[in-house]
Amino acid sequence: MSLPTYVRLVEVGPRDGLQNEAQPISVTDKVQLVDALTAAGLGYIEVGSFVSPKWVPQMAGSAEVFAQIQRKPDVVYGALAPNLRGFEDAIAAGVKEVAVFAAASEAFSQRNINCSISESLARFVPIMEAAKQHGVTVRGYVSCVLGCPYEGNVAPEQVALVARELYAMGCYEVSLGDTIGTGTAGATRKMFDVVSADVPREKLAGHFHDTYGQAMANIYASLLEGIAVFDSSIAGLGGCPYAKGASGNVATEDVVYLLNGLGIETGIDLDALILAGRQISTVLGRPSGSRVAKARSAQ
Amino acid sequence: MSLPTYVRLVEVGPRDGLQNEAQPISVTDKVQLVDALTAAGLGYIEVGSFVSPKWVPQMAGSAEVFAQIQRKPDVVYGALAPNLRGFEDAIAAGVKEVAVFAAASEAFSQRNINCSISESLARFVPIMEAAKQHGVTVRGYVSCVLGCPYEGNVAPEQVALVARELYAMGCYEVSLGDTIGTGTAGATRKMFDVVSADVPREKLAGHFHDTYGQAMANIYASLLEGIAVFDSSIAGLGGCPYAKGASGNVATEDVVYLLNGLGIETGIDLDALILAGRQISTVLGRPSGSRVAKARSAQ
Repeated sequence: MSLPTYVRLVEVGPRDGLQNEAQPISVTDKVQLVDALTAAGLGYIEVGSFVSPKWVPQMAGSAEVFAQIQRKPDVVYGALAPNLRGFEDAIAAGVKEVAVFAAASEAFSQRNINCSISESLARFVPIMEAAKQHGVTVRGYVSCVLGCPYEGNVAPEQVALVARELYAMGCYEVSLGDTIGTGTAGATRKMFDVVSADVPREKLAGHFHDTYGQAMANIYASLLEGIAVFDSSIAGLGGCPYAKGASGNVATEDVVYLLNGLGIETGIDLDALILAGRQISTVLGRPSGSRVAKARSAQ
Repeated sequence: MSLPTYVRLVEVGPRDGLQNEAQPISVTDKVQLVDALTAAGLGYIEVGSFVSPKWVPQMAGSAEVFAQIQRKPDVVYGALAPNLRGFEDAIAAGVKEVAVFAAASEAFSQRNINCSISESLARFVPIMEAAKQHGVTVRGYVSCVLGCPYEGNVAPEQVALVARELYAMGCYEVSLGDTIGTGTAGATRKMFDVVSADVPREKLAGHFHDTYGQAMANIYASLLEGIAVFDSSIAGLGGCPYAKGASGNVATEDVVYLLNGLGIETGIDLDALILAGRQISTVLGRPSGSRVAKARSAQ
């Protein structure tokens, strides 16, 4: 067993998190959140999404957020750009890194983004070309890698196929997401084992949801597979434990606590992180989804 | 890596769980809980504690609970017996298995049971002798194995010392408890590694609290160390996620979900388990602490 010595966390709270909160929050509060995350030492913050506010009202104002955040050199401020229109808006907002989003399940792709997996991949080609021209880096997401709400099991080979395509078209990293949180540690290891035959392990990230309480075990299992990049969400944003159908993003604080315990470097200050989580939880008017934050506030 | 093929779960909800709930519940509700757990296929249920109701009012009526439960052959119905008086009460109630409780931390022992570690071990000697005479089996607990609220770090060698004493005096199994939930996966593995030099791995159990979100990762880490017995608490009883200073017992449902995913046999029916958890959560008037139960009820 050889664990990575350094892990990079991709903070998805301001985008994947807030996008799944019932209540849209103001540009000012988003900017404060991103700045607090920067101060805590995060190296990658997914700030927003360039998508029609008609579809995702929570992400309205992403351009304003990008204009107002205090950028720190060496920190990547990413945005989701689901299509060329979104990509152009992102560029206009000064975005230097975008993410594209595909599914490992055909049924989920159809219902979530209204097209087949191969159609979604084809749509990314002009984005990849435009990104190259603008010197913008592109990260790829694959959802439903350990299960689909419509199809049930998803074969690791199917995940590998989509991940390979994204990598081949120029995504420098592919994040594999257990969107519905049904995966367990053994399936996680097997999935990374299969996918890494097609995409180098150091180009893969894990994205886990704690809906069934498995996220932390899955992250530990991934570390044992040599995976050293994980997506996580401050205060577990997007995964309100009190709501039905909670998406259950794993809380950044809890992941940092695990990594600290394992002696793995992250460059993140846990106390500052907890503070950032407390601020946004106050804005949302609900308790943090982070167990570490809860335990600390009980002390 | 070779995971166990079968894991035995020790259900501590009716004792360790309810003991830490603010609100005492009736004998009838306790009996219904134990019977529902029996129906779900648990092989070991810690039913109550024979301790002065002055100190632990939640455990009053343990003798009545033992008298009223529907016992199934091959299921062990255990009780905590902290001293000879408690042991005699347990015997009178028809108990066939008792548990004794020591700490790996001197400060915790002093504050929790008002004596040193060695004094606590000395108190168990007459219990062990009486148990032998009555054909009663004894399980040992060690608390604070990965950290103490007063002393901070606890050395694995200190845990080994206490576990070895309990094993040597006749405990057939020693459960090692991360009482405050601060342990992480690496420390868990190291602790089992050190202790198993003194007590065979198949005589050790893991008892994890999810206070810092680490319980599931720690259980997976323990499985990788060949540990095949775990304590857990239905609906996360005793670890109310909304209360300050939550003790954070890991939820049996979430552990069974993990083990099912790993293809490890438990003999437990997850649906029946979720039902048992739902019943007791209704009695307590609060949401279940199990993420699996929450996710299932959101479907």
